[in-house]
Amino acid sequence: MARPTPLSGFPEWLPDGRVVEQHVLDTLRRTFELHGFAGIETRAVEPLDQLLRKGETSKEVYVLRRLQDEAGAEGVADRSEKQLGLHFDLTVPFARYVLENAGRLAFPFKRYQIQKVWRGERPQDGRFREFVQADIDVVGAGELPYHYEVELPLVMAEALGALRDVGVPEVRILVNNRKVAEGFYRGLGLEDVEGVLRQVDKLDKVGPESVAELLQAEQGATPEQAKACLELAAIAGEDVGVVERVRALAASYGAGTELLETGLGELAALIEAAARRAPGVVVADLKIARGLDYYTGSVYETVLVGHEQLGSICSGGRYDTLASDGKNTYPGVGLSIGVSRLVSRLLSAGLVAATRGVPTAVLVAVSDEEHRSQSDAVATALRARGIPADVAPTAAKFGKQIKFADRRGIPFVWFPAGPGAEGEPVADALAGQVKDIRSGEQVDAHAGSWAPPAEDVHPRVVPAAAG
Amino acid sequence: MARPTPLSGFPEWLPDGRVVEQHVLDTLRRTFELHGFAGIETRAVEPLDQLLRKGETSKEVYVLRRLQDEAGAEGVADRSEKQLGLHFDLTVPFARYVLENAGRLAFPFKRYQIQKVWRGERPQDGRFREFVQADIDVVGAGELPYHYEVELPLVMAEALGALRDVGVPEVRILVNNRKVAEGFYRGLGLEDVEGVLRQVDKLDKVGPESVAELLQAEQGATPEQAKACLELAAIAGEDVGVVERVRALAASYGAGTELLETGLGELAALIEAAARRAPGVVVADLKIARGLDYYTGSVYETVLVGHEQLGSICSGGRYDTLASDGKNTYPGVGLSIGVSRLVSRLLSAGLVAATRGVPTAVLVAVSDEEHRSQSDAVATALRARGIPADVAPTAAKFGKQIKFADRRGIPFVWFPAGPGAEGEPVADALAGQVKDIRSGEQVDAHAGSWAPPAEDVHPRVVPAAAG
Repeated sequence: MARPTPLSGFPEWLPDGRVVEQHVLDTLRRTFELHGFAGIETRAVEPLDQLLRKGETSKEVYVLRRLQDEAGAEGVADRSEKQLGLHFDLTVPFARYVLENAGRLAFPFKRYQIQKVWRGERPQDGRFREFVQADIDVVGAGELPYHYEVELPLVMAEALGALRDVGVPEVRILVNNRKVAEGFYRGLGLEDVEGVLRQVDKLDKVGPESVAELLQAEQGATPEQAKACLELAAIAGEDVGVVERVRALAASYGAGTELLETGLGELAALIEAAARRAPGVVVADLKIARGLDYYTGSVYETVLVGHEQLGSICSGGRYDTLASDGKNTYPGVGLSIGVSRLVSRLLSAGLVAATRGVPTAVLVAVSDEEHRSQSDAVATALRARGIPADVAPTAAKFGKQIKFADRRGIPFVWFPAGPGAEGEPVADALAGQVKDIRSGEQVDAHAGSWAPPAEDVHPRVVPAAAG
Repeated sequence: MARPTPLSGFPEWLPDGRVVEQHVLDTLRRTFELHGFAGIETRAVEPLDQLLRKGETSKEVYVLRRLQDEAGAEGVADRSEKQLGLHFDLTVPFARYVLENAGRLAFPFKRYQIQKVWRGERPQDGRFREFVQADIDVVGAGELPYHYEVELPLVMAEALGALRDVGVPEVRILVNNRKVAEGFYRGLGLEDVEGVLRQVDKLDKVGPESVAELLQAEQGATPEQAKACLELAAIAGEDVGVVERVRALAASYGAGTELLETGLGELAALIEAAARRAPGVVVADLKIARGLDYYTGSVYETVLVGHEQLGSICSGGRYDTLASDGKNTYPGVGLSIGVSRLVSRLLSAGLVAATRGVPTAVLVAVSDEEHRSQSDAVATALRARGIPADVAPTAAKFGKQIKFADRRGIPFVWFPAGPGAEGEPVADALAGQVKDIRSGEQVDAHAGSWAPPAEDVHPRVVPAAAG
């Protein structure tokens, strides 16, 4: 087998990169659990017809086929089986899970879900085709109080904030409310709300002039209507003054509606609560549209300050109908972190680093193969007290064993007491010396009591020197 | 959307089942890390030609196709792209990862990997088509000392042993050595070693008479050779007496070989070390063949005592060639736990249970919506001290809020101090009362200092009453 090369779009990390990713995942999980979200996993596949319900995403689905079906009848799947595809997000599977298990879940149901998703993007786009998402959602049966639209982005702010001290940049959560946009557009007389949102969503890519042209060409907007849409999209700010500016803008165009007022009330509540509970994190930004998704209230995007060109790393919003089985409707609100995108940036920009790529805190040296069991006993004693330990692979010269530790970033090497004089048994197999190979300091120690400094027990993730 | 039904072969757990699975995964990870195994993840897909290198597994592969390719030209994949399939184990991807990153890894390289794998089994077989595996392997560059063949099954024994106190049954690791089998068969004059192993592997399914017939019909064995193979396969035991019995058997057939002696030496070392380090766990069983895999030394299977009919939940062995790039060869030894199979049995047999399906230890009640922020403050104070807390969804009657906690198994409900008389602000928003809803006991408490008993902070997994 020749040396394999990476597959474009399928990121993998070396062990020290995985330490960073694992720290991110552990931190997210811890925060989600502190807030009472239950962890679930869903299968990686869904019936193809369910994945294609929102036509727009059809191009991104990976379809599965059992190889033996293919061999038996080219292109014809076994008719007894549903065609399956890999999920492209965690929302569609979660909605299905809620419906499938509705009778066995307690609502409102708060869940987090951290899994890989797949999108069959064109390889030349340089996008990820496999990546990890971390989602939180709360879903109600029939109804879901508004306050969850305030709380969920704050949970994500807390989760991402908990990563600040390892070098993750500050985040800004940009919020808007679909009712504001829809109420305003309808007040202007623009009825194709989704079409308008889709054009406004292109602002960052094509700029305001092009969006104005598109609104006129495709949504039949007048120049004045297009101008009003752009003026709304230009409003942003951290305090409730934003709400007053939108209200004034709507009044100037005679575009005030009841829906707009409802949306502004919700937006104000979100901004006020966020300013109190996580000052400086949440910013109202009226151009946030999240065009293709079926949100009906708050919408969220999140940027890393200083890395805005990376795009949103955490997005979501409120759905009035996350799922429905005809009898019951399940409204939901949730956000999804693109973990792979975040970790990839952290690593490639050199923002964070792992102190080592192995869990091992102590390498136990082996003086000769006949006494390997003594080194094993030392390692066992250390592990019993929660200290990750490894035993040298061979009884090489100690200098080579120290080099083994050094190459892996293992901070300590343990030297068991030598065998007793003239082959007598060792008085205490757990006695020995331990060397901090960073400082060179070497001290007498006992494997039943010695411990490395707390900060050295496990690999840590720290801000990298390079920025 | 009608209520969806489960997909056969794709197991999913309700939140309390996921608590059990997560506990198993956390315990495995902790043990693996204590032993110095670095965690890695590989992408879910590999090029199809790599997945099919071992012909035998070809029927089990799920092949991927981008939906738009399929739409464009039925049955014809984009020629610019390699055909991809989902991995069916974690060994093939690990071998590829080692070759791809050989220059950036330090050898011997110890890694653990916990991921889903997929096998396109016929649905009517009732087997899992998606399941979680937890693998440990150590791989060397060019060489790998024998002692790892002793250590790795003991790491698995420790990992599974750490699950005993939550109700996981005792395990037995059955070990054999390919060199023993091969040396013995060759000594008998049977040259088709793989063929013989494949027949012996059927012993539990078809019984000794059928295996004897198959050996004669398909491997051209004489009745005496077949008898000798069955006699070897019948040898089992916990101590090195087993080795003497094999040696005596070989002598009686004049089947002693150098390879057999090497294998018996290795097997004896494994049994002796295991008897010392994990008494009663490892049993030599000369019928363990692991027919289809390319092992060259020790082989392992693991059964749950009392659930032997479940088959092996943890298997593996030594490969002299885990990977090779023509220039270098990478020998390895490893084992793989079938986590889904284990968890599925734990749940379906009622062996274990989670104390609750949500992380929440405390539900903070809401007296009225105007004072929700006070309840939020209580929850924030509890979380800051690592106590998972949730706030009631609505300011329903307290009886209903208690029922909300009870349905989810949340042990404590917190009642914030009521608003001050005549609407005056509350003296201390974090003061209140907390009720243990299991005992009914309710006491004054302060959210800055009160904590639930340590055992109630997180959901636990415990042996279930039903057996």
